[in-house]
Amino acid sequence: MTRTVLESKTKTVTIGFDEPFCVIGERINPTGRKKLAAELESGDFSTVEKDAIEQVACGAMVLDINSGAVFTNKMAEDPRYADNNFVEPTLMGQLIDTVQALVDVPLCIDSSVPGALETGLEKAQGRPLLNSVTGEEERLELVLPLVKKYNVPVVAISNDDTGISEDPEVRFAVAKKIVERAADYGIPAHDIVVDPLVMPIGAMSTAGRQVFTLVRRLRDELGVNTTCGASNISFGLPNRHGINAAFLPMAIGAGMTSAIMNPVRSVEMEAVAAANMLMNHDPNGGRWIGLARVIEAMQAGATFAEAATAAQNSGARSSGRRGGRRRA
Amino acid sequence: MTRTVLESKTKTVTIGFDEPFCVIGERINPTGRKKLAAELESGDFSTVEKDAIEQVACGAMVLDINSGAVFTNKMAEDPRYADNNFVEPTLMGQLIDTVQALVDVPLCIDSSVPGALETGLEKAQGRPLLNSVTGEEERLELVLPLVKKYNVPVVAISNDDTGISEDPEVRFAVAKKIVERAADYGIPAHDIVVDPLVMPIGAMSTAGRQVFTLVRRLRDELGVNTTCGASNISFGLPNRHGINAAFLPMAIGAGMTSAIMNPVRSVEMEAVAAANMLMNHDPNGGRWIGLARVIEAMQAGATFAEAATAAQNSGARSSGRRGGRRRA
Repeated sequence: MTRTVLESKTKTVTIGFDEPFCVIGERINPTGRKKLAAELESGDFSTVEKDAIEQVACGAMVLDINSGAVFTNKMAEDPRYADNNFVEPTLMGQLIDTVQALVDVPLCIDSSVPGALETGLEKAQGRPLLNSVTGEEERLELVLPLVKKYNVPVVAISNDDTGISEDPEVRFAVAKKIVERAADYGIPAHDIVVDPLVMPIGAMSTAGRQVFTLVRRLRDELGVNTTCGASNISFGLPNRHGINAAFLPMAIGAGMTSAIMNPVRSVEMEAVAAANMLMNHDPNGGRWIGLARVIEAMQAGATFAEAATAAQNSGARSSGRRGGRRRA
Repeated sequence: MTRTVLESKTKTVTIGFDEPFCVIGERINPTGRKKLAAELESGDFSTVEKDAIEQVACGAMVLDINSGAVFTNKMAEDPRYADNNFVEPTLMGQLIDTVQALVDVPLCIDSSVPGALETGLEKAQGRPLLNSVTGEEERLELVLPLVKKYNVPVVAISNDDTGISEDPEVRFAVAKKIVERAADYGIPAHDIVVDPLVMPIGAMSTAGRQVFTLVRRLRDELGVNTTCGASNISFGLPNRHGINAAFLPMAIGAGMTSAIMNPVRSVEMEAVAAANMLMNHDPNGGRWIGLARVIEAMQAGATFAEAATAAQNSGARSSGRRGGRRRA
């Protein structure tokens, strides 16, 4: 049985075929969020604090921490800031300290900069998920030793030195290569969480079927858990939430076990909760019924984050409770 | 390749593994709709007319016509009305005449009364779907000769003289028996659309996984198309649309090819449209984009039926057009 075990200071989250789908909150990421990047540059971590609390209230089980900020003002004053190897390790440490002071969920340390990954591994309490290794030779040689040294699980993205292949056979082969290379380091397959890469369905009409087939094969043939950037599927199309909300249950039905996604969006979280129940991972429907109360409260005008926070504080939901008991 | 071909006067709808999911509109059914039953008893077919037009506008590709009304007032005056063998054949004829005068989509003739099925087969233009045969001996002997005589496809419900089994193996065996018995009559497997029976997930936590596994087996081992009463899955639980909207994409991903459902509900129809696109059955996303416009119009306060009808009349959607061209 493939179980990828993540830990925070006091809590355990297991990604697995017989576990509820693991929602990894994507919000703490300055890439593509200019306002957040500017705040971080000025030392303002208030949005990060809000995102940490809201994401957990809305049901995120793990929080992704991405340090990929570009500090344009500082760069103008000091050329060292043009180098992310200079910026990210410090920022990663600050982000993790901020988040860990507020919420007690496992973290996913997300950077392309090896120094930021190592700072993250030092700072994170418990057993974080490292994000990510790819099939690129340089990346394999930089990241796998960290994975081994810190005994953590890692996200493996199925592109290599030739780029991202549109051929799912090639993407499967890249994933297999990473799993084999990890084995050479003594890293077991259950600590590799493969991202088979989700293409936009608007650009490639086979993108959905590719992912469903790949996920099934990764599970059956390599015995690994899987993740994805779920919202990629709907890129460029109207009514994206509607596409995401069908994609997630289909991916879960095919065997996908986690996703890096926005948990503050009720439509997608509803789809995940329903899919969990339909996969018999919410056997008494308790989580579904709790979420239904939150959705009902939204009809009175509250946002999902507000309604989820209120429910959390009133104890109506057993999950996502901050600082209290949480089902391991 | 399994293709179940249905026809109306001028249009063809194919249920198949490589076709968009076939939405069979369930609304024209007086069972459990007391107000409709009372209207029909008084000879008022206005709700049937409205339901026929709205369901097609909202995207129903086939309309189910169920004649199972209980005429309580007439029964008090004339004891013959206590017998559905007396009531349903006449009513079925009236319902079909009413619907065919307004919309040009294939019909699904739905009755437990053999006389009503035969009236329906005589009245329906083109090639209707017969609903239904079961594994019960008496039902097999009554219905399969009609299926053969009229050369129509039939819905096969996987219960038998012992009732509905909670064991999916038994339900598979019943489906297999029906397919084999049909073959004895010279009825091909591609004209059998199996309903594997969807149990409420609130009562049986394995209900979702059972259906997904059964659908896959029915497809792989018997080569048949499948259908279901989709909303059964959410019976008794809060926020039913949310459950249905995850169940449908998961069932479609598992290989389900049709459902008898309420097409006037936008949440479920959005889920089906997204799943079609994700299965590469809406290759240019044209249907999704058309539906997104309808959903957008709903934000201004229109109901789904109103917005869909407006879009249909303005030609914004290529499907569901009444009296005009329709993709076969």
